[in-house]
Amino acid sequence: MNNTQTTAAPVATLERPLDREELDRIHAWWRAANYLSVGQIYLMDNPLLREPLRPEHIKPRLLGHWGTTPGINFIYAHLNRAIMRRDLDMMYVIGPGHGGPAAVAAAWLEGTYSEVYPNVSQDAEGMKRLFTQFSFPGGIPSHVAPETPGSIHEGGELGYSLSHAYGAAFDNPDLIVAAIVGDGEAETGPLATSWHCNKFLDPCRDGAVLPILHLNGYKIASPTILARITPTELDELLRGYGYTPYLVEGSDPAQMHQDFAAALDRCLDEIALIQRRARAEGTTERPRWPMIVLRSPKGWTGPAEVDGLKVEGFWRAHQVPFSNARGDAHHRAVLEHWMRSYRPEELFDDSGAPVAAIRDLHPAGERRMSANPHTNPDGPLSRDLRMPDFRDYAVPVTAPGTGAVESTRLLGTFLRDVMRDNMRDFRVLAPDENNSNRLTAILEATARTWMARIEPYDEGLAVDGRLMEILSEHTCQGWLEGYLLTGRHGFFSCYEAFIHIVDSMVNQHAKWLKTTNGIEWRHPIPSLNYLLTSHVWRQDHNGFSHQDPGFIDHVVNKKADVIRVYLPPDANTLLSVADHCLRSRQYINVIVAGKQPELQYLHMQDAIVHCTKGIGIWEWASTDGNSEPDVVLGCAGDVPTMEVLAAAELLRGFFPDLRVRVVNVVDLMRLQDQREHPHGLPDRDFDALFTTDKPIIFNYHGYPWLIHRLTYRRTNHDNLHVRGYLEEGTTTTPFDMCVLNRIDRFHLAIDVIDRVPRLWPVAGHHREWLHNKLIEHRQYVRTHGEDMPEIRDWQWSGIPGPATAVANAPLTEPV
Amino acid sequence: MNNTQTTAAPVATLERPLDREELDRIHAWWRAANYLSVGQIYLMDNPLLREPLRPEHIKPRLLGHWGTTPGINFIYAHLNRAIMRRDLDMMYVIGPGHGGPAAVAAAWLEGTYSEVYPNVSQDAEGMKRLFTQFSFPGGIPSHVAPETPGSIHEGGELGYSLSHAYGAAFDNPDLIVAAIVGDGEAETGPLATSWHCNKFLDPCRDGAVLPILHLNGYKIASPTILARITPTELDELLRGYGYTPYLVEGSDPAQMHQDFAAALDRCLDEIALIQRRARAEGTTERPRWPMIVLRSPKGWTGPAEVDGLKVEGFWRAHQVPFSNARGDAHHRAVLEHWMRSYRPEELFDDSGAPVAAIRDLHPAGERRMSANPHTNPDGPLSRDLRMPDFRDYAVPVTAPGTGAVESTRLLGTFLRDVMRDNMRDFRVLAPDENNSNRLTAILEATARTWMARIEPYDEGLAVDGRLMEILSEHTCQGWLEGYLLTGRHGFFSCYEAFIHIVDSMVNQHAKWLKTTNGIEWRHPIPSLNYLLTSHVWRQDHNGFSHQDPGFIDHVVNKKADVIRVYLPPDANTLLSVADHCLRSRQYINVIVAGKQPELQYLHMQDAIVHCTKGIGIWEWASTDGNSEPDVVLGCAGDVPTMEVLAAAELLRGFFPDLRVRVVNVVDLMRLQDQREHPHGLPDRDFDALFTTDKPIIFNYHGYPWLIHRLTYRRTNHDNLHVRGYLEEGTTTTPFDMCVLNRIDRFHLAIDVIDRVPRLWPVAGHHREWLHNKLIEHRQYVRTHGEDMPEIRDWQWSGIPGPATAVANAPLTEPV
Repeated sequence: MNNTQTTAAPVATLERPLDREELDRIHAWWRAANYLSVGQIYLMDNPLLREPLRPEHIKPRLLGHWGTTPGINFIYAHLNRAIMRRDLDMMYVIGPGHGGPAAVAAAWLEGTYSEVYPNVSQDAEGMKRLFTQFSFPGGIPSHVAPETPGSIHEGGELGYSLSHAYGAAFDNPDLIVAAIVGDGEAETGPLATSWHCNKFLDPCRDGAVLPILHLNGYKIASPTILARITPTELDELLRGYGYTPYLVEGSDPAQMHQDFAAALDRCLDEIALIQRRARAEGTTERPRWPMIVLRSPKGWTGPAEVDGLKVEGFWRAHQVPFSNARGDAHHRAVLEHWMRSYRPEELFDDSGAPVAAIRDLHPAGERRMSANPHTNPDGPLSRDLRMPDFRDYAVPVTAPGTGAVESTRLLGTFLRDVMRDNMRDFRVLAPDENNSNRLTAILEATARTWMARIEPYDEGLAVDGRLMEILSEHTCQGWLEGYLLTGRHGFFSCYEAFIHIVDSMVNQHAKWLKTTNGIEWRHPIPSLNYLLTSHVWRQDHNGFSHQDPGFIDHVVNKKADVIRVYLPPDANTLLSVADHCLRSRQYINVIVAGKQPELQYLHMQDAIVHCTKGIGIWEWASTDGNSEPDVVLGCAGDVPTMEVLAAAELLRGFFPDLRVRVVNVVDLMRLQDQREHPHGLPDRDFDALFTTDKPIIFNYHGYPWLIHRLTYRRTNHDNLHVRGYLEEGTTTTPFDMCVLNRIDRFHLAIDVIDRVPRLWPVAGHHREWLHNKLIEHRQYVRTHGEDMPEIRDWQWSGIPGPATAVANAPLTEPV
Repeated sequence: MNNTQTTAAPVATLERPLDREELDRIHAWWRAANYLSVGQIYLMDNPLLREPLRPEHIKPRLLGHWGTTPGINFIYAHLNRAIMRRDLDMMYVIGPGHGGPAAVAAAWLEGTYSEVYPNVSQDAEGMKRLFTQFSFPGGIPSHVAPETPGSIHEGGELGYSLSHAYGAAFDNPDLIVAAIVGDGEAETGPLATSWHCNKFLDPCRDGAVLPILHLNGYKIASPTILARITPTELDELLRGYGYTPYLVEGSDPAQMHQDFAAALDRCLDEIALIQRRARAEGTTERPRWPMIVLRSPKGWTGPAEVDGLKVEGFWRAHQVPFSNARGDAHHRAVLEHWMRSYRPEELFDDSGAPVAAIRDLHPAGERRMSANPHTNPDGPLSRDLRMPDFRDYAVPVTAPGTGAVESTRLLGTFLRDVMRDNMRDFRVLAPDENNSNRLTAILEATARTWMARIEPYDEGLAVDGRLMEILSEHTCQGWLEGYLLTGRHGFFSCYEAFIHIVDSMVNQHAKWLKTTNGIEWRHPIPSLNYLLTSHVWRQDHNGFSHQDPGFIDHVVNKKADVIRVYLPPDANTLLSVADHCLRSRQYINVIVAGKQPELQYLHMQDAIVHCTKGIGIWEWASTDGNSEPDVVLGCAGDVPTMEVLAAAELLRGFFPDLRVRVVNVVDLMRLQDQREHPHGLPDRDFDALFTTDKPIIFNYHGYPWLIHRLTYRRTNHDNLHVRGYLEEGTTTTPFDMCVLNRIDRFHLAIDVIDRVPRLWPVAGHHREWLHNKLIEHRQYVRTHGEDMPEIRDWQWSGIPGPATAVANAPLTEPV
């Protein structure tokens, strides 16, 4: 262990915190965990090696990762010692999640596994099941998956262990999150920046994160960067990140036990000191949190060589160190020798249960990391939000399609009060865009979290702020996931285009939700709520690179029962949708709404009805007189909705007897078949809205193909014509963005003319007029640099129908 | 400037490398660039302020980012000085790409802009155009976009400046890439890990990257982490990353010019020394590359306060510092005062051209960064690859559907020889998965690039290796993009699920390609080639987190003319497709192919025909006798193809007179309408393959909806039934993955029975048999942990047709 300033070369410590007995007991626990890990990877029978290994004891397909596992077991044993000695509330996040056998072994040794899965009992039969089920059809996955008690982090995709750990620690002042970071994971970008999370952790209000950088030295087949830079560089790097690193390095178990125990003691002492200073003495200076660097051989305690090739301490130990134990007697002998080296006869009694010295070497009840309640939150650890009445924030709408409002600014006032009422379990996150996204009012309730230096002229920064801003979508997402997975609530606003940065993280979270839906003992966690704003139609100022509505396409590939997509067209619908999302659990809710001033359509009471149905006819904008229309104008998204209304108004002027029906969609999944999505409309409802044979012009916020994908089974799909984003864009005016992608009022009106044959004889000069308007627009914006006043100032002035009469088709309501 | 070991606090340097005249000239150039930058943001007339500013001179919509711009101009001026003094081959990468006005101003001052866009001449009229066009409809984007000469990096989405810069430097030994990293960008994950790129740069073979970390202190509305950690921490962090940082800090222009010039001189001296040591003296030790930290006020030289609020040196300077210059006389006066503070009358002559002292203050010809040929490579800088004949690597196929081969291992031998023949302009990249992906043969031609420590027992590492492995998909992608954008070629293999990590980067690259397709002076660059392997159907061992085929869905949202997707079913088709992709330019080619042993179907000559058509009937597997079939079995992807064939074989046994047609798709975009994609089949060809009214069972590699999306316009779409990945998976057996998602032979055969009514009277017991096989499978895998031998060992044994008769429908060939 080493804490010198300029070099991190390992030196033998003089501290020997373990006496002989404690050392032996910890070592025995470690041997037991290692034994159980190897058993999971290799065996399907003869778990206690009570007879010589025979081929049929070995699994036919060997799947699993040994390399990282003994190190995790080692760390786990020492964390348990610390928990017991200090009565700590501690949970783990295991970055190298392919070390699944370790977490499962520990949970079994702690008894949690058998409590949760009674058929995997703490005896020989249970051990056989424990071994067989691992990476086996009908069994459990190879990673620290949702099936593993104590896990909130699968670690399948690498990069998010630290941000998850910090997310779990926020607002849990008594919690310590031990975060194991593998040196493979440490090469990823998201992990590299997440070391900086220590600038966002308040030592008063939040718990602590103890990073343990586990340098095994190798990835699948080559060395890792952090294991091969100089010790000085590594030390500087971690200090530069703001930590005090303690190095534990070696391979001799007895020495390593002493060194690690000493390092861990020192870290926990420092954490306690930091917290005492902040909490009792009121220090507000950013502390240097401690961390551990553990350099140990990959595949530690495994075979040094197999078939004459180096295994222990080399990349060959990464997965299954040798693969033919079933077919090759020599390999089988290596395996048996290896497993017997842990002396199982000393570790497990006649029944196959751990002997008392091991069985008792873990904390009790909820202090067990495998049973820490934060990892499966319920009751007081995961209260529902106290919600103000969203109707109190409504904007009055005297006439539909008038009175431009920045909808997200209004939402900000609602979120401000959600924040005020939930100052211990709600966080708002934005990658440097909260104010840009007009959620400014939140700053009236709280500040931006900031532990780094604050200048006198800074605004809205505080150590205990609850608005989390870092220019890293990955870190925001990781924090929020960690926060949700430990039972609390959050709201993530992001530029629409850049939410793609976390596509893969969303995949993993959706998979976690899907899997936990099938695990009885897992409690539902609060939903992951996105507001995607600064969206494609209002990124005219930042240009093409900032224009991408494809995140919706991405999420709808995930399991329908965890995905919800909302496109509220105005402020009141946005409020209603946001309220709904914040109350929900086990979903990924994607809300897409613009931040620029936009027309308002619905009174709050209508907005509620409309959002409850998720889709509906806007009668005040329709001219079909509740009878069969000539054409249906569908719309989803604020800007496409406005353009549809403007087109409807044009058509009303051109063709007074044309029966136009306007259908607005808030809940996008209503379009899908009910067999595909729980929110899907039954065909008869869909047909009632969209007819069975009339042309439908559908103006959509995103890529048009998605609407086809959602509706291809519908009766009238052949008559569906979708407009949407065609990947055409640049720095231009808002309306020009619409024109470039043909979602504008003029193109839509032309679409209607072209699809309603009875208009053809009379519509010639209207069509020409529309074309001329497009040319006029183009000339105008190229001369003046802004949209024509008639476009900029357009408001709905159609024959005023009853503004309350919306969404009144007798639809089946979504679940 | 400061180079002490323990603290980076700024100290005034004693070095004053600039004499009075040089200082004045550089300062004048900087004033000119700043003037032109402000003009671009604000003005549409009166560019030289020859009359007082009037409202109509100001753009109605003010779009642009001032904050970072003066710093970029400052750096640019000094880089030019260095280029001229040392005759450097230097290009820039501007991370804070929203500082577009700076890059455009520099290109105009250097004359390049007027060469490329003659209507933007170097006179008053041209300056007016320069100003008006910026962020204006029909004009140019606000960022350092493809339209900007000298740019390879738009910097719209943040995080990739350093990896792009290193990619550009690889294999360009005489090039220096100056990479400006904004402190906002520095918070992103991809940027945070890309500092480590210095472990992958060979000082002999590669050029140099000079990172310039530009600390403006603020993002949109809050401070940045690196600007607010302690100077010691920042210094340690950058040293930990392996650099020697030189700090330049302040706001006084005269002092800053001296300090920056001195720092830059020292960095360039060190770079020259490092290169000399490596190249002349043969040192192989990893050097500590120099870098600069520039701390300067955000919005430097702009108004200190506006309306009583702090602007310069604060986040309010980020975009347009004050927005009502057109409507508000006071704001207009502030603007005029600001612009006149640069003394334009000294900078531009009567015609509006830069005065001689400024006009000559840049390097000549291709030494101008705005005209550096690496940024628009052609001719010798972007040669086509020398390609070995891919047919020489063919696997012999004696009978279709036999002889399992690891297709990617075969591909590895081809890539090995591509590498051997192109040792200066080809790189292979993999996030730690090259060998896992079975491309092992590449290591016979080259090693893994590795500048960090090498141990005696390491394998396949070398300073001059050309296989790039870092466990960061972001960095691999960034390197490759930088390498391609400077004219060279590459091949990126990745686990299919984790390529989503770079979704957003792919978006940006696709946008770059789409835009450059419309820019006449831009030369086409080599395609971005992906091999996605370890794919969803063969990630049974790593489980659910590793299973996601959605990247295809992601890319097909991009412009059709830059996207290609290939699903070769076996080794010879994979070779043919890879050869095609490596020869192409301006595409993103996505190849999906498994790495596990898989059956081979086509002789090389058939494979070529099949891949050229992209889609075709496999007559040897069909029983329709070249006449109208009863049912069409479509397939795309290696595993789905095998299951379709196995289903066809079952059906052949059950119903000898059933006319089954098997259609295999290699080029996925053939399915789409030719109006949507250049590779799209004309309807008549599609109908000839898939009939107009017979049931189609289509077995697809990815999410099934994509096939509906691609084909919804096709005549026979209503009869199309697609099987694909349903987001069901775990750690299990390969065939069980198929069963869980119903793409297996048994489900497919049931699908056929259910959709061919004439089978119903006779198929009852066949259907039952198939159901029983599914139950038998389930029981078997749960008992034995592996697939039934009849599944594992299955080979095609259908009535042997002529193996050469494939893909012979008279299709229109794709472009």
